[in-house]
Amino acid sequence: MSTAKDTAGEDMPWDEVTPEAARKLLVAAVEAFAEQGYHATTTRDIAGRAGMSPAALYIHYKTKEELLHRISRIGHEKALEVLSGAAGIEGTPSERLAEAVSSFVRWHAGRHNTARVVQYELDALSDEHRTEIVELRRRSDAVVREILREGVESGEFDVPDVPGTTLAVLSLCIDVARWFNTQGRRTPDEVGALYADLVLRMVTAQK
Amino acid sequence: MSTAKDTAGEDMPWDEVTPEAARKLLVAAVEAFAEQGYHATTTRDIAGRAGMSPAALYIHYKTKEELLHRISRIGHEKALEVLSGAAGIEGTPSERLAEAVSSFVRWHAGRHNTARVVQYELDALSDEHRTEIVELRRRSDAVVREILREGVESGEFDVPDVPGTTLAVLSLCIDVARWFNTQGRRTPDEVGALYADLVLRMVTAQK
Repeated sequence: MSTAKDTAGEDMPWDEVTPEAARKLLVAAVEAFAEQGYHATTTRDIAGRAGMSPAALYIHYKTKEELLHRISRIGHEKALEVLSGAAGIEGTPSERLAEAVSSFVRWHAGRHNTARVVQYELDALSDEHRTEIVELRRRSDAVVREILREGVESGEFDVPDVPGTTLAVLSLCIDVARWFNTQGRRTPDEVGALYADLVLRMVTAQK
Repeated sequence: MSTAKDTAGEDMPWDEVTPEAARKLLVAAVEAFAEQGYHATTTRDIAGRAGMSPAALYIHYKTKEELLHRISRIGHEKALEVLSGAAGIEGTPSERLAEAVSSFVRWHAGRHNTARVVQYELDALSDEHRTEIVELRRRSDAVVREILREGVESGEFDVPDVPGTTLAVLSLCIDVARWFNTQGRRTPDEVGALYADLVLRMVTAQK
């Protein structure tokens, strides 16, 4: 099922979620939350979309918040994995930053439904779960901040405000999930390449 | 009432909306939509927040969508006004771009609740209303695109992909509404200044 696409053309593996019924419910929840928002979605809606009964849903998830938390945690872990993997390639800070930005953009374009849910429904998480997710977000921040710091140290980059620039770089990538449209003119790869170029221009020291 | 603040510390004039009851309902709708999403909000919720009866709401707005449309149209018109005003100052393309970005960022930071509703609930508008709003968005795009084009022509800017860079610049400003927090470390002015600098770095021709 790892190449299955949902109606938005989004890659939808969620392979880590087992058994299959739990995975199907989670995919249905992502769709419903992305379409109508977390608060307007009932567990009955989610069960219905997955072709199951509400009772079958409760076997796997006690509450709607548990579904959101699961989606948010897996989504943030995947995004962090993509970012860390790209940042960890052999290369100069410029090469690593370009790879990190283009991969992170591709993820937000390719999985825009998941990314929207994960980004816009943070306030709906319980305090405990939100704290856990905020920690994952801090780690994504740290990946970008560290590349910027290394580039400044090596003289490749000129970045007067490293935390502010980190915020801007991540924000630029994340907002792709809002505007990206699979029917649009640009592919995820093209947006990734454009954004990597724009971000390098932001940080590269003038000769 | 033009200096009234809502609970998020956002400037909330909506002075153009009269009579006062219609304005109060609209302010209540922005709060409710920003908090729980459009689909989860009922007209009863909105009337309750404004201290009115559902019947009183129907005097001013026939449907919930009419409220969203009103918010979205005024919000987009204000954002376009801010952007056009800034872009229209006397100065070089660099000066005008810096002013446009910092003003647009300040608007999205200062009115983040309105901006979130306006940006994230586009799909909930009727086809006719969405078409009208898309046209306002095209005009915002055109303002930025025109400054970039002029800067390229004058040799100040080097922008290989003007439409793509326009998209990125506006996206960066808009996403401020998602992450901006009035309790955070940066003021709207500080974010505006940082972003104007980052955008100029993106587009300025290397000497």
